[in-house]
Amino acid sequence: MPPSFLDAVRWNAEGLVPAVAQDAATGRVLTLAWMNREALAATQASGVAHYWSRSRKALWRKGESSGHTQTVREIRLDCDDDAILLVVEQAGGIACHTGRERCFYKRLDGLAWRETDPVLKDPKDIYDNR
Amino acid sequence: MPPSFLDAVRWNAEGLVPAVAQDAATGRVLTLAWMNREALAATQASGVAHYWSRSRKALWRKGESSGHTQTVREIRLDCDDDAILLVVEQAGGIACHTGRERCFYKRLDGLAWRETDPVLKDPKDIYDNR
Repeated sequence: MPPSFLDAVRWNAEGLVPAVAQDAATGRVLTLAWMNREALAATQASGVAHYWSRSRKALWRKGESSGHTQTVREIRLDCDDDAILLVVEQAGGIACHTGRERCFYKRLDGLAWRETDPVLKDPKDIYDNR
Repeated sequence: MPPSFLDAVRWNAEGLVPAVAQDAATGRVLTLAWMNREALAATQASGVAHYWSRSRKALWRKGESSGHTQTVREIRLDCDDDAILLVVEQAGGIACHTGRERCFYKRLDGLAWRETDPVLKDPKDIYDNR
């Protein structure tokens, strides 16, 4: 029998909800990804963040190719039951596939998006040297 | 001519993207709401958070009925250009329509969602006594 906490979530028409990951140490908002029932169940059961890759249409254990896993401290649900917040320990201090700490590295400056965050590790070194 | 920063955003099939609001003072993740082009343009132009209400199908200036406006310190875009992060000053210290600081007031405890955050103000007093 699937755990009933999954039934409390209001999954959208595609069976997904947005999931925000926040760094437990720095408080930074790292990523916004998507979860389906399987991803949330796997996250709860394993203690590491799993998402649903909309592009690959596959369950995705964050860090499975980069090593940048997210160990989950808290799983939270919002008032409308349609958004998840994960408070995580981010392995390597890098959450973004571009090699930055976080995915939200562009800031609106006047009417232009400016990149504010440095690349900490070349993506080639993240994904090829393994 | 509409500002080009709006064209950089990858709006979904409904013309929306998820927008996370984080408290500038506490670092708490307060809400996840949705924006369309009009909402992001209004947020940029006014300096206070505007969202798109999916239930009311209307532009919504956060706090227009509650008084709990969000003054925007930063507007950020993620690596895939399909999620927004607002860093805000939350008026009244209450972001949730339930009268709590944040919408993410339920935490997964084992296999059950538990309410962890107190109601700071009765919603009746937020919405009726104005």
